[in-house]
Amino acid sequence: MTRVYLDHNATASLRDEARAAMVAAMDVVGNPSSVHAEGRAAKGLVEAARADLAEALGAQGFDIVFTSGATEAAALALSAGWSRVLGSAVEHDAVAAWADRVAWETLPVGRDGRVGAVAAAPGELVAVQAANSETGVLQALELDTGGALRLVDLVQLVGRVPVALSWLPPALYMISAHKFGGPKGVGALLVPQGTDLPALLVGGGQEMGRRSGTENVVGIAGMAAAARAAMAELAGGAQERIGQFRNILESAIAAGAPETIFVGKDSDRLPNTSCLVTPGWKGETQVMAMDLAGFAVSAGSACSSGKVRASRVLGAMGYDDEAAASAIRVSLGPETTEDEVLRFAETWTAKLKRHRARAA
Amino acid sequence: MTRVYLDHNATASLRDEARAAMVAAMDVVGNPSSVHAEGRAAKGLVEAARADLAEALGAQGFDIVFTSGATEAAALALSAGWSRVLGSAVEHDAVAAWADRVAWETLPVGRDGRVGAVAAAPGELVAVQAANSETGVLQALELDTGGALRLVDLVQLVGRVPVALSWLPPALYMISAHKFGGPKGVGALLVPQGTDLPALLVGGGQEMGRRSGTENVVGIAGMAAAARAAMAELAGGAQERIGQFRNILESAIAAGAPETIFVGKDSDRLPNTSCLVTPGWKGETQVMAMDLAGFAVSAGSACSSGKVRASRVLGAMGYDDEAAASAIRVSLGPETTEDEVLRFAETWTAKLKRHRARAA
Repeated sequence: MTRVYLDHNATASLRDEARAAMVAAMDVVGNPSSVHAEGRAAKGLVEAARADLAEALGAQGFDIVFTSGATEAAALALSAGWSRVLGSAVEHDAVAAWADRVAWETLPVGRDGRVGAVAAAPGELVAVQAANSETGVLQALELDTGGALRLVDLVQLVGRVPVALSWLPPALYMISAHKFGGPKGVGALLVPQGTDLPALLVGGGQEMGRRSGTENVVGIAGMAAAARAAMAELAGGAQERIGQFRNILESAIAAGAPETIFVGKDSDRLPNTSCLVTPGWKGETQVMAMDLAGFAVSAGSACSSGKVRASRVLGAMGYDDEAAASAIRVSLGPETTEDEVLRFAETWTAKLKRHRARAA
Repeated sequence: MTRVYLDHNATASLRDEARAAMVAAMDVVGNPSSVHAEGRAAKGLVEAARADLAEALGAQGFDIVFTSGATEAAALALSAGWSRVLGSAVEHDAVAAWADRVAWETLPVGRDGRVGAVAAAPGELVAVQAANSETGVLQALELDTGGALRLVDLVQLVGRVPVALSWLPPALYMISAHKFGGPKGVGALLVPQGTDLPALLVGGGQEMGRRSGTENVVGIAGMAAAARAAMAELAGGAQERIGQFRNILESAIAAGAPETIFVGKDSDRLPNTSCLVTPGWKGETQVMAMDLAGFAVSAGSACSSGKVRASRVLGAMGYDDEAAASAIRVSLGPETTEDEVLRFAETWTAKLKRHRARAA
């Protein structure tokens, strides 16, 4: 039986456009730092990718610093010597892990998953994500920070919600290629031009001195191609379709399991994400049962090295431990079909019934 | 006319085996941190690559921490809070740049490019490379460090000199895939099992907590395939052939330009590397002239973002600024032919004569 992949917030399939760009980039021999023709060809590929990515994100006025992913982008932003970092309670681990390393204050979120007012000051950094990976809940992209610069985790938003960075207040934006159909292990930090940001990785002085190390040319080419394709798809209305399928999924689940809670349903959410809490049925158990039945979904954030634990995000939203441990995330992608989500709901509901029968 | 690429120390061509492994890895959808079948398949690919790489490097007893390249591997090793770092004067920029960030003492080298005795102590780190990228000069792989751990830049050695890490004293070894025919932007730090090393990149806890961030699955697969292929090639005697071609090159150059100095010729060197100092003819000019004639070589280290400057390495070896600014590096690869090196020598000698005639 064909598997049904509904874990696009963990990672998306590689787009054909990205694959083609990557295969083409494999033929470019040179080191982008070399001055000879081979080096210039490699440099040309990197710079063309940078321009394409800037256009896809509407990031005129930003320097794009290529990194090995959003985790490194976050580290580059967060290690810059801020007097204090104010980070939301629902940030991804790549941001939240810095609470142990810098002067940190947690910004609480409400039951709706959203951050309220922020009292910060210049010299501080405010880390509030654009969209949560587990619930899909969107935060305000414009936020009064009292003059503090913002770090915006844009990872889950790219390709799912239209955004042009140059229309927004200046901020540091982190992205990850593999969430929008590029390869794993490449990302970027977008830095408003003129912003002083010390390097985390030093050496050869690549990326204008902001990030040393020979560039991941194949990955960078793949990321830019994926961004272009994702934006074209978004403009073509794919996310409206995906949002309809997500709603169909939730209606079908609600019909079979009236006690299931759809976390963040009353907030603005990513169109592709559904976070289901079904008290009394562990998320971990649900994920394994659905995996055996041919469906890939996740419990909590998937970026946790296989660790399964109660969701920190749901805890921050006021759900108790039992509820937080009973959550799964279903995240749709451009290739998801209506038939797939209906089959998921049907299988899931049948498994829930069996679980209830056993538990009774 | 077909170009002749003689800059393999800057970056090598992607091996067919690496390309095939990368293309195959593109079909693996999952995030290695996901627990479902797709995630386990991705995890399996990463772990198979880790096992292959360990075998290729004879690295039983080491943990392999995948990174975005040697620059990040160096940063992971050097940021670990050593009481002092003793680094050789000929380290790559990825190591040398840390002189500004940690308590650092420079270990001088002799005219032969080699480090002498090292007076260090436990809790300190001794950074002495295995082979220099500009001159090919080899350092001792066994060195009395007074109980201090060593960081060994193995980047230029892999695939060129047989080495089994488990036969050497425990040390931190950094490698970079693209120097031995893997992709750019992926590398590793090899850490003796049981060594405590704090993470530089934190978040999801990948790589046993030592390096967070979703793995560059395609790049990691390519690196392992390249390492296997490079080791098979090495065992098949390719480096003996490459060494002969390098010697043929140097003999032909010496015949046409008796004043040219071959840096490090009296030391043990990498078989593929020749560093030529021709006083009165700027390295930068030589590189550009040879580029126009169809040959890719470099002046100084190529990993310097296009910066052209007098070689720090040659300065450390006692060459004066004028000599150091008159150096080029010719580095051969497995695909290099005898005809190519002879054509290089012929073209270079003709250009030198023209340069001398103009200067006279």
